[in-house]
Amino acid sequence: MARPSLREQILRAGLPVIFRSGYHAATVRDICAAARAPHGSFTNHFRSKEAFAVEVLNGYFNYLKKVLEDALHNPKLTPRQKLKRYLDVITDKLERDRFMIGCLIGDLSLQVSSHSNLLRKRLNAIFKEWRALFASCISAAQSAGEIDSRFDSIELAEFLLASWEGAILRMKVERSPAALERFKTIAFETVFKRPQRRRKRSTSTSNRGRK
Amino acid sequence: MARPSLREQILRAGLPVIFRSGYHAATVRDICAAARAPHGSFTNHFRSKEAFAVEVLNGYFNYLKKVLEDALHNPKLTPRQKLKRYLDVITDKLERDRFMIGCLIGDLSLQVSSHSNLLRKRLNAIFKEWRALFASCISAAQSAGEIDSRFDSIELAEFLLASWEGAILRMKVERSPAALERFKTIAFETVFKRPQRRRKRSTSTSNRGRK
Repeated sequence: MARPSLREQILRAGLPVIFRSGYHAATVRDICAAARAPHGSFTNHFRSKEAFAVEVLNGYFNYLKKVLEDALHNPKLTPRQKLKRYLDVITDKLERDRFMIGCLIGDLSLQVSSHSNLLRKRLNAIFKEWRALFASCISAAQSAGEIDSRFDSIELAEFLLASWEGAILRMKVERSPAALERFKTIAFETVFKRPQRRRKRSTSTSNRGRK
Repeated sequence: MARPSLREQILRAGLPVIFRSGYHAATVRDICAAARAPHGSFTNHFRSKEAFAVEVLNGYFNYLKKVLEDALHNPKLTPRQKLKRYLDVITDKLERDRFMIGCLIGDLSLQVSSHSNLLRKRLNAIFKEWRALFASCISAAQSAGEIDSRFDSIELAEFLLASWEGAILRMKVERSPAALERFKTIAFETVFKRPQRRRKRSTSTSNRGRK
C-alpha cells in the first residue's frame, strides 16, 4: 500500500483533533503533533486553519455519505426501514465513542457559523446535499405508502436531519443514548409513521413485523 | 436606580461576548474590555472562565424561563397554544438578531460538553429543569385532549427541546427562519397535533380558529 502523503496524513490526524477539541481550541500545533508533521508542512498544504477545516469537513461528509448509501442501497429493506437503519447504524457508531463525540457537521454548525462564512456556506451546501439523499428515500417511502405524503419530502428530510442533530446535541450533554432512542421512537411513530389503512380492530395485527 | 456592581457588569457584558465569539474564542480580555472592567476585577469575582460561563449560563436560563413563564401563564391560551406561543416568541427574538445568534444552551452544549464537566453537568441540569416546565404544559394539553396521550409528557418535552435546538442549529447555518417555521409546522401537525375526534367530512370545520 502506498504511504499516504503528508497532506493526507495531516487531514486524517486533524479530524479527531477537531472532533475532540472543537474548532477554536484545536491549534495547528496540536494538529501537526497528532500528524507527526512539521509545522511548515501544514502551511505548505493549507492556506489557513479555516481552509483546512473545510477539507476535514468534506472528508467527514464523504464518509457519512458512504454510511448513508450503504443503508439506502440495502435491497432487503423498504425505504422507511432504510431511514431507520441509517439512524441505528449512526447510534452504534456514537456508542463506540461512549456518546462523548457527536457529529462534526452539527459541532461546526454551532462552533463556526458566526465566525467563518467559508465554513458556514460549506455547511449549508452539505446540509442541502445530505437532505437530497434523505428526500429521495422519503419520497420512495411516500410512493410506497409507507409514509404520509402530506409534507414535501425535502421538508421532511430537513426536519429529520435538524431534529437528529438536536438529538445528538442532547446526547452529548447527557452522555447517554436516551435522546437518540427517544427521537427514533417518537419520530417513527408520528412524523414518519406508517399511514393507517385499517380500522382500529386490526391495529395489533397490522403492526406485526414492521418495527 | 442602583448602579450594578462590577461583578454584575462583567456578567452582563460577558453574555454577548460568549454568544458572538463562542466559549473558546471569547477571552477574559475581551470580556473585561466589553465590561470596561480591569482584568484584576474578573479574577477577583470569578474563579475561572469556566466558573464565569456557568454564571452567564444561569443568567441566560433565568431569562429564558421568564419568557417561557410569560407564555405558560397567558390566561387566553390553551396549553397547546402556549407551547406554540413560546416558540413564536423565541422566533421573533431570533429574527431581531437576523438569525445569526441562536441559543446559548445549544451553543455551549456543542462547544464545551467535551471539555468541561462543570458546564456539561450544569447544562444537563438546565435541560431537566427546562423540560419539566414544558412537560407540565404538555401534560395539561394531554388532559384537555389537545395532544395525544400515547407518549409520556416528559418524553415529549425532551423531544420538543432537542428538536427545537436542532432547528436553531440549522437556522444558524442558513441564516433564515426556514428551519424554525418548518419545525413548528411539522411538529404541530404530527407529534403535537390535535387528536382527531370526528370523521373526515367535518375536518375543515373542526380546525377553525385552532391555528
